[in-house]
Amino acid sequence: MSHEHFKECIEECLRCMQECNHCYDACLKEEHSGMMGECIRLDRECADICAYAAQAMSRNSPFAKQICSICTTICEACGNECKKHQHDHCQRCAENCFACAEACRKMAG
Amino acid sequence: MSHEHFKECIEECLRCMQECNHCYDACLKEEHSGMMGECIRLDRECADICAYAAQAMSRNSPFAKQICSICTTICEACGNECKKHQHDHCQRCAENCFACAEACRKMAG
Amino acid sequence: MSHEHFKECIEECLRCMQECNHCYDACLKEEHSGMMGECIRLDRECADICAYAAQAMSRNSPFAKQICSICTTICEACGNECKKHQHDHCQRCAENCFACAEACRKMAG
Amino acid sequence: MSHEHFKECIEECLRCMQECNHCYDACLKEEHSGMMGECIRLDRECADICAYAAQAMSRNSPFAKQICSICTTICEACGNECKKHQHDHCQRCAENCFACAEACRKMAG
Repeated sequence: MSHEHFKECIEECLRCMQECNHCYDACLKEEHSGMMGECIRLDRECADICAYAAQAMSRNSPFAKQICSICTTICEACGNECKKHQHDHCQRCAENCFACAEACRKMAG
Repeated sequence: MSHEHFKECIEECLRCMQECNHCYDACLKEEHSGMMGECIRLDRECADICAYAAQAMSRNSPFAKQICSICTTICEACGNECKKHQHDHCQRCAENCFACAEACRKMAG
Repeated sequence: MSHEHFKECIEECLRCMQECNHCYDACLKEEHSGMMGECIRLDRECADICAYAAQAMSRNSPFAKQICSICTTICEACGNECKKHQHDHCQRCAENCFACAEACRKMAG
Repeated sequence: MSHEHFKECIEECLRCMQECNHCYDACLKEEHSGMMGECIRLDRECADICAYAAQAMSRNSPFAKQICSICTTICEACGNECKKHQHDHCQRCAENCFACAEACRKMAG
């Protein structure tokens, strides 16, 4: 599979990584950050798997499909948590998580 | 420089990575996790640089010394934050951070 | 699941990460490194998933089992490649890969 | 410092990460990959620091500047190696490395 083949999915993963990290940073600064524990935790999980998946696809890893499969699961879990919270950063993060989950699901095939 | 040369410093980094991640998980579960924001943030920073430094040293990276230099800085910052908190996981994490900072400082030379 | 629960599997992953990176470095220096392409590639894949799995387990990731499942697959692939080559670093790496695959398989349950 | 502040530098790092990984994959497949050892090694070093720097900036790491400083060094080393080789993937990688080094140098301030 070629570098180009992965292009769209890599871009979704890198966008999702950035939004998750932004949400993580913003959650840590919220006045009631104590209520945001699950969101903080899942933001890190999701940013890390997205970074890992993007690296794997861009080096044409033989394991890219399986990595995208687990990335789908983690993006969905993070999106489901984030969408419960009214903060703009959580809502925007949820949207990016679901878009990334969709791209990874196709890639995992 | 050889794999063996790095052995002690790699071990300190990997121990510190584990303690930082353990402290991160425990802080997220504390009743007053809202007060633990800086600790959570620095635990992640420190776990990530320690993992990165251990990978770099074990693959004999030409940049291992500079990476250990920044690892020293981050370990000290994390240790200084953790030692402010009375939780056992914070105190143990602080100890590991300072030990790792010391090993990385020697390596950075 | 607790930090301690993961202890043995984390240790196997971190040992395997180091041996894979050592093998990667040594393969790049071999006179006939052109024949070692698959070994170099899989050493990086395996070191990276092992580092990722160890981080995930030590922060008590909700996705630790699935991550260990894919780690099993990658460790086996790397071990199977490395055991084809007579270099000491390849043989030692293969042994560590198979031991890590076994620990991750149990964890993935 | 805000998420937006880092935007351009994050984008350069993520582009550079992809080109380095693409060059790494292509070098491993070259007929004379034995001559490409330093390029393969530096491509991995550079992809990994770029991924790490992008993660750090997007989570508003207190250490983003120091991380960008070391990223500058590694991007330049990788660019200098890649530009020695005539392959298209090496030449394109070199260009991206130098552009990323420039963005990181500004960020490191």
